[in-house]
Amino acid sequence: MSKTSQQIAEICGVSRGTVDRALNNRPGINPETKERILKVAEQLGYRPHFLAQSLVKGSTKSIGAVLFDINNRIFPQLVNAIETRASELGYFLYLTLTNKDPEKERECLQHLVDRRVDGILLLSVNKGDDFERFVSKLGVPVITFGNLVSDEIPYIWVDDRKAIRDAVKRLAALGYEEIIYVSPPMALSGRTNLYAVEQRHAGFRQAIAEAGGALSADLILHKGYLEEIEGLLRKGSKRKVILCTSDKYALKVLLHLKKKGIRVPQDVGLMGFDNIDTLEYITPSLSTIAYSADEVGTKAVDLLVDRIAGRNVPLRTMVPHEIIEGEST
Amino acid sequence: MSKTSQQIAEICGVSRGTVDRALNNRPGINPETKERILKVAEQLGYRPHFLAQSLVKGSTKSIGAVLFDINNRIFPQLVNAIETRASELGYFLYLTLTNKDPEKERECLQHLVDRRVDGILLLSVNKGDDFERFVSKLGVPVITFGNLVSDEIPYIWVDDRKAIRDAVKRLAALGYEEIIYVSPPMALSGRTNLYAVEQRHAGFRQAIAEAGGALSADLILHKGYLEEIEGLLRKGSKRKVILCTSDKYALKVLLHLKKKGIRVPQDVGLMGFDNIDTLEYITPSLSTIAYSADEVGTKAVDLLVDRIAGRNVPLRTMVPHEIIEGEST
Repeated sequence: MSKTSQQIAEICGVSRGTVDRALNNRPGINPETKERILKVAEQLGYRPHFLAQSLVKGSTKSIGAVLFDINNRIFPQLVNAIETRASELGYFLYLTLTNKDPEKERECLQHLVDRRVDGILLLSVNKGDDFERFVSKLGVPVITFGNLVSDEIPYIWVDDRKAIRDAVKRLAALGYEEIIYVSPPMALSGRTNLYAVEQRHAGFRQAIAEAGGALSADLILHKGYLEEIEGLLRKGSKRKVILCTSDKYALKVLLHLKKKGIRVPQDVGLMGFDNIDTLEYITPSLSTIAYSADEVGTKAVDLLVDRIAGRNVPLRTMVPHEIIEGEST
Repeated sequence: MSKTSQQIAEICGVSRGTVDRALNNRPGINPETKERILKVAEQLGYRPHFLAQSLVKGSTKSIGAVLFDINNRIFPQLVNAIETRASELGYFLYLTLTNKDPEKERECLQHLVDRRVDGILLLSVNKGDDFERFVSKLGVPVITFGNLVSDEIPYIWVDDRKAIRDAVKRLAALGYEEIIYVSPPMALSGRTNLYAVEQRHAGFRQAIAEAGGALSADLILHKGYLEEIEGLLRKGSKRKVILCTSDKYALKVLLHLKKKGIRVPQDVGLMGFDNIDTLEYITPSLSTIAYSADEVGTKAVDLLVDRIAGRNVPLRTMVPHEIIEGEST
């Protein structure tokens, strides 16, 4: 008990135990007395020493989220879902951003643990044995999403591989003969975590192999892809479609094609991935692979809170996806 | 010194003072020795007890940001700028969201203080004397942006009032005779902080008064505004333009007009506010009031770090704005 809480007890004419019950939200106290104590406490500018308390109690009812950045619209959508669900369950959310810097990510994780969060949601740029050990030594439950870190750490996301396969099948059914696949570069795949990107790429290669020669494929996996797409569109007479691994890329491609007077879908088809809310404003409407960011965010928090409570959770949770056919294919 | 750090000293064959220097990043230690100590420490899963340390040291090199949400694209843009600058200056950023709930906002502020952030950036939904006292009692420097809380608390933003006046003047110069002004509702203005919204509205009324009858104005300040706009467009023969207090609104209006076959700018002009990055993808390109979210975010962090260091900062900092003329006017 601090000096201040003794002061509160004296002002309110109650015992220090009663003040303690009011300040710590414990039962066994008359509601009116509690209200009076809290009012006096507030007037005195008193706050129980939260950090010192949390060191003893071991729970802070707070969780951390570690994300790349919030540039791609899908991230704010996820964060809003995470924040909403955490709040519903009485947890306070700290959001930290890594800018895809592996060292920064370790710092973010350590910062959150140092501040005694009860658990962490992680979209990781790190991978490998060393990082797995780092995560397992953090001492708090971790739920990963987007990029898998380890088969031992629960993971929630969409089935990227199957989603791309489904998209390719649909594009073939629509009569497209050549697919220009636009994906982030994978040059760093040995060093940073590109799990989702790699899964999508694997799904694409598998779908092309399954098509058995009916489809031809071009891969664009580097900078300068806008100019390269233009070059590919001038070659051959096959019906072409551009499949992008994110709507963000697809919108950049659409903008470039418009500027060059190349019509979508008349001259080339276009499909994205994510179904970000920005698409609402885009003409022609973009075909895309949709999944619910709300569902990913909400379920991720549920999994984490289950783990915090010591309950077992599935190591893999996949949310469903569907192909949205817009005007662009 | 904990038991673990003694263990590290023994393993590395150095003094406990040397271990202490390595773990606390203090000078006076051979770099190779330091590296060896840090490696051993990591293998032992050792971390100096950060919270206990911060209680003693009084600085955590972390700052908090309190925002509404990250739905409107301008917010992620601001957050990225804040995060980037904080990181450059060696500060760790915690982002918390209030969903415009006044109680939640107080909780967020208190949570951040309880976790010993060195300072806070605040986009407030609260206002009034009681809240000013609450903020001043937090015991850490606070920089506000977007909504002003008090003349005593530093504030950074764009000059909303002048920005709208400039926009109205430009629209008049373009030959528009009637302005349909689309703004968030102000019904809650007595209870929640709508400073920016009110400043823009005041600027609008002032500009209309200054035009002295050359312009007529309609105000749309409630739900169902899309239908109301349609009604207004059918009335009279004046050249009309819709001026929205955010691009987010303007894009919703644009979408609605497209669906109804009303052409922009042939049938009606349209202007937004914010110059969000989504505009890049919009056709026709949207006229808007632009300011640099990067500049707001960066300068807000600089102001906060100055305050943390005990330096005086200006109570008002205004970043410049400019009118961007797109195809929509």
